[in-house]
Amino acid sequence: MTYCVGIEVDQGLVFAADTRTSASFDDVRVHRKMHTFEFPGERVFVLLSAGNLATTQLTISKLQSDVDDGAPRNLRSFRHLYQVAEYVGEVLVSSQARIGNDPQHSGVSVQSTLILGGQIAGERPGLYMIYPLGNCIAASPETPYLQIGESKYGKPILDRILRPETSLENAARCALVSLDSTIRSNLSVGMPIDLALLRNGDLKLTQQMRLEGDTPLYAEIHDSWSQKLEAAVHSLPRFPWEPARAEDAEPSSAPRHAPPRNTATRRDPGDMQGQQ
Amino acid sequence: MTYCVGIEVDQGLVFAADTRTSASFDDVRVHRKMHTFEFPGERVFVLLSAGNLATTQLTISKLQSDVDDGAPRNLRSFRHLYQVAEYVGEVLVSSQARIGNDPQHSGVSVQSTLILGGQIAGERPGLYMIYPLGNCIAASPETPYLQIGESKYGKPILDRILRPETSLENAARCALVSLDSTIRSNLSVGMPIDLALLRNGDLKLTQQMRLEGDTPLYAEIHDSWSQKLEAAVHSLPRFPWEPARAEDAEPSSAPRHAPPRNTATRRDPGDMQGQQ
Repeated sequence: MTYCVGIEVDQGLVFAADTRTSASFDDVRVHRKMHTFEFPGERVFVLLSAGNLATTQLTISKLQSDVDDGAPRNLRSFRHLYQVAEYVGEVLVSSQARIGNDPQHSGVSVQSTLILGGQIAGERPGLYMIYPLGNCIAASPETPYLQIGESKYGKPILDRILRPETSLENAARCALVSLDSTIRSNLSVGMPIDLALLRNGDLKLTQQMRLEGDTPLYAEIHDSWSQKLEAAVHSLPRFPWEPARAEDAEPSSAPRHAPPRNTATRRDPGDMQGQQ
Repeated sequence: MTYCVGIEVDQGLVFAADTRTSASFDDVRVHRKMHTFEFPGERVFVLLSAGNLATTQLTISKLQSDVDDGAPRNLRSFRHLYQVAEYVGEVLVSSQARIGNDPQHSGVSVQSTLILGGQIAGERPGLYMIYPLGNCIAASPETPYLQIGESKYGKPILDRILRPETSLENAARCALVSLDSTIRSNLSVGMPIDLALLRNGDLKLTQQMRLEGDTPLYAEIHDSWSQKLEAAVHSLPRFPWEPARAEDAEPSSAPRHAPPRNTATRRDPGDMQGQQ
């Protein structure tokens, strides 16, 4: 399995991907799922992949060779990012068809799903999900991220935090927490993590790094996030029957204006009234 | 769909369940998935259910009528909780078989999965997952919780926070956050939430409540959790290229003894080195 996330905020794009591939529990390897195409000052693209590894690698090779050969349609020939997304979708579909015709692959799904993000000079950055059928959707301001692979574990943190005005670095920290949560809860997603940031207007990879478990930045996030979460859970409202926290006590004799915390919660209605 | 979680800590047990059932997007209802059996001072049980609603209700009715009729095997007749779990498993299997024979249900899965927790006088509290086949597993100190239904969204917070020494109330707050995250990220899980706490030795329901979206306690959790998470993400380590935070700056001229934050992260090795 796989977990990749792409994020689109006002300041630019963030990409994060794990690197574990597994044909079974005893056939686990590390393969790159983040692929970059840079034409500095002109255009820059990042592709994240989930699904059949052979399909993905064939797609990436074809995209690169079309550029190298100066094919009529290639990553440099389009004026708009959505046209690039359509072209990548076509290459994906043809890669699946080519591998699918190989009798070796019968019975194995040859499908892949991609996230494409990037920027072409003169346009805003954009982020697309490309489905195995070759069709695609863009991220939206209301949901400024796209996920592929094992996406459920890491979704709540994205839903709660990401907005278009989130800074690029905070979006990247959020992506790393999302990856870390997924890696912790699901064996099929594993270290190291590839991370890339594209700042709006840079027209090249602003930052790109591979994070291992012992990379200082990641190790600190991995170690401290659980403590931060635990502190946050501790600081949630007390139940009515709990004694007040020491730190909640009034430090002076001044009257408190805040409403009382111990508002009664609703009594459970029991089975008979439970159906509405 | 459904999301229910049972937690076993040293201080006792916590149960939380959503109440949404849906046959399809336009057939959504509220049904109780938490069922309680109290024999104060003697024994107390809580059952959480996911799966076919008719199967669950038949199972609950049978468990209750066996008690009412003083059947040879009923919830009061066993000395150990694992025997109760086996008995509930048998009732579940027979309920599935009975509904499965009904030609109306052909083509629909009649299976249910249950979480059983409780305490019998003289024993520690216990927590079991009961599968559709009637077999069961207990929670463990390493994984002091069990989930049924749409479990992935709410799993990371449980993995990061719950340990046997977590207090009963913090475990309950953790359960509410886990439910809230799932409700926010998945339409098939919905309010209100049923919550129950069994403190070790109470031999009755210590606390039981139904939380609506506007119940003060839950509304405060729902409103403040995203802010707490956002503050936690902000306080994670800075990237090497980021300027130090204002609050990180040294307030006095005394030398800093902490190691520098800007330790270089590893340079991304690129595609060629990405395969190991």
